[in-house]
Amino acid sequence: MIYLDNAATTKPSQTAINDALIFNETAFYNPSALYREGIKASQLIKDAKNYILSTITSSKHDLIFTSCGTESDNQAIFCAVKRGIFVTTKGEHSAVQKCFIELKNKNIQTEFIDLNSDGSVNEEKLYSFIKDNPNVTFVSIVHVNNETGAINDINKIAKNIKAINKDIIFHSDGVQAYGKIPFKLCEYVDLYSISAHKINAFKGTGALIKKKGLNLSPYILGGGQENGLRSGTENLFGIKVFEFAAKEHYSTIKNDFEYVKTLKSAFLDKIDKEIFTIISSDNCSPYVVLVSAKGLKGEVIMHSLETEGIIVGNGSACSSKNPHSRVIEACGYDLAVLSGVVRVSFSNKTTLEEVEIAVTLLNNVARKLKNIMGK
Amino acid sequence: MIYLDNAATTKPSQTAINDALIFNETAFYNPSALYREGIKASQLIKDAKNYILSTITSSKHDLIFTSCGTESDNQAIFCAVKRGIFVTTKGEHSAVQKCFIELKNKNIQTEFIDLNSDGSVNEEKLYSFIKDNPNVTFVSIVHVNNETGAINDINKIAKNIKAINKDIIFHSDGVQAYGKIPFKLCEYVDLYSISAHKINAFKGTGALIKKKGLNLSPYILGGGQENGLRSGTENLFGIKVFEFAAKEHYSTIKNDFEYVKTLKSAFLDKIDKEIFTIISSDNCSPYVVLVSAKGLKGEVIMHSLETEGIIVGNGSACSSKNPHSRVIEACGYDLAVLSGVVRVSFSNKTTLEEVEIAVTLLNNVARKLKNIMGK
Repeated sequence: MIYLDNAATTKPSQTAINDALIFNETAFYNPSALYREGIKASQLIKDAKNYILSTITSSKHDLIFTSCGTESDNQAIFCAVKRGIFVTTKGEHSAVQKCFIELKNKNIQTEFIDLNSDGSVNEEKLYSFIKDNPNVTFVSIVHVNNETGAINDINKIAKNIKAINKDIIFHSDGVQAYGKIPFKLCEYVDLYSISAHKINAFKGTGALIKKKGLNLSPYILGGGQENGLRSGTENLFGIKVFEFAAKEHYSTIKNDFEYVKTLKSAFLDKIDKEIFTIISSDNCSPYVVLVSAKGLKGEVIMHSLETEGIIVGNGSACSSKNPHSRVIEACGYDLAVLSGVVRVSFSNKTTLEEVEIAVTLLNNVARKLKNIMGK
Repeated sequence: MIYLDNAATTKPSQTAINDALIFNETAFYNPSALYREGIKASQLIKDAKNYILSTITSSKHDLIFTSCGTESDNQAIFCAVKRGIFVTTKGEHSAVQKCFIELKNKNIQTEFIDLNSDGSVNEEKLYSFIKDNPNVTFVSIVHVNNETGAINDINKIAKNIKAINKDIIFHSDGVQAYGKIPFKLCEYVDLYSISAHKINAFKGTGALIKKKGLNLSPYILGGGQENGLRSGTENLFGIKVFEFAAKEHYSTIKNDFEYVKTLKSAFLDKIDKEIFTIISSDNCSPYVVLVSAKGLKGEVIMHSLETEGIIVGNGSACSSKNPHSRVIEACGYDLAVLSGVVRVSFSNKTTLEEVEIAVTLLNNVARKLKNIMGK
């Protein structure tokens, strides 16, 4: 089987699991307990925190472990500021989008900024809205779009936004960027969400990175873990697997990035351009490629490929219940393109051979379907 | 080392881990994905859900997987009803207590009902408050108190409450009861929180059990997982370990309950009653015994025992930052008793020999400290 849906989730690293399993024997103690073994468990969490922070920031940020990227987004949006205008894009993951809809339902003014055709935010419209609305208090812009792979240059955007209004709190969902895009957060990014299962660690672990000194409330209340910012007994095992998987990724992140670019190139070279519209641009993350077989059904292509042993996505697994993608619609495509989308997403373990087999089969399957439909 | 702080957390079951590890290889796929492997992962979660439900209810309830008991409590309290008077007890875990304080801060009327001396709720006062206040909409009563082990008969209490006001929503934090107290939820219990790591599964997994048909909002918003009630990619591995650990516990739950009673008896038989006040009553869960060496410091006793290889708690690890327990204070004890509390909590794997060694050392340590202090 060839697995090309790594943007949905990744296979947990056997090495990271094996290295962390020991902690279920030696450090299963409650990290809040005051005896030595509890303190040791608590120190192991601090080590993971410091390591993960070191991969993405130069001592300007803290880190709160959460249960997932979605929870991190919820806390960022609901717990940093309570009034004013909240701004985001039309290209956000549901974890951000649904929180904004909740704000709207609570009569808080929200604004969804338009996208460019590759799924990146239209920066001009963003800056213009912020200039025209001095009451904007919070801006959330996804780092790497989970459907098209579009990269927003969030460091630049955050800096530009703060040049217009220094009091704005800037958040970014970095779930598809962390461990993949070589990058460090600048001081203008206040909040940044990351997730473990997108980098070969476990589902059920995430983190919210926050600027030091930023005033943030907890979203989950209770025993006061994570310096009072996230209650609930800490998931040490999940956290250590996250740390170890991050170590694996960051030891080769630059080489992997270049390597995955060659996978994307090979895929785009071979894909049948008479059938497929390529939605992801050259500026998108190499890890995600979105194409559309206009007039065909992406889901049918996906299932046909599955019978050949190739697993691809058809947009975000997290919004698989919707008929078509609101994000690709916001990129400006019509229904015929929307219904034909296929998302191929690589990992640093994907081989060139796998990509070549997959793209050949993808072309074949689409051609057959086109013939059957007489198109 | 003898570990007697099982109410804080338990050692993950090696068998449950081993049985679930395979799913990181064969079922790591995103359970929201529409291809066969995603659907298989989703089915594995349904199986876990059905099994866990079968242990605790007779088809009257659904189950939402969450990241922990604390999150379950937050969702129950914040997402079932938005107005009216919220009632709880003075004996709740911080996960419930802090949510009630948040409600209070938002100008919602809350009431904390007094406790009996063993930590159970004063039922007369509870019923009387509900009779006097027809605007009560929500009641939360802990099933087993995490500090004293006091068991509230929540099925009876829920039934009595609904006989006074049938529209009240009844929630119980069952974190210290699930997998330990032989018990099934009656139809009057609307919401029930449970946690995996208290029954030898992982931290980072919990569940909120809800009455079928009860109107509940999600607390964490996003991709709409868990039938829209808890977003975030499902933690399949943690969920399977939870299921398998629950199977281990429920296969022997009645025998274990009787067995742990013999541990509690042995402990209470041997404890030096000239030094120790016994706070847990006969009606408390056998898994938790709270005693106090009046006039001594519980923390000092804990650390002294630690050097002998015995791990006990001094109240709830989840509120270890507080100087003394608000719950034991609400049981009516003075400061001298409050400062001397030691919590001993058993598992079904604890041996009689371990208990006998621990209680002997506990007596010795307390006697020595008393001598040093000239008391």
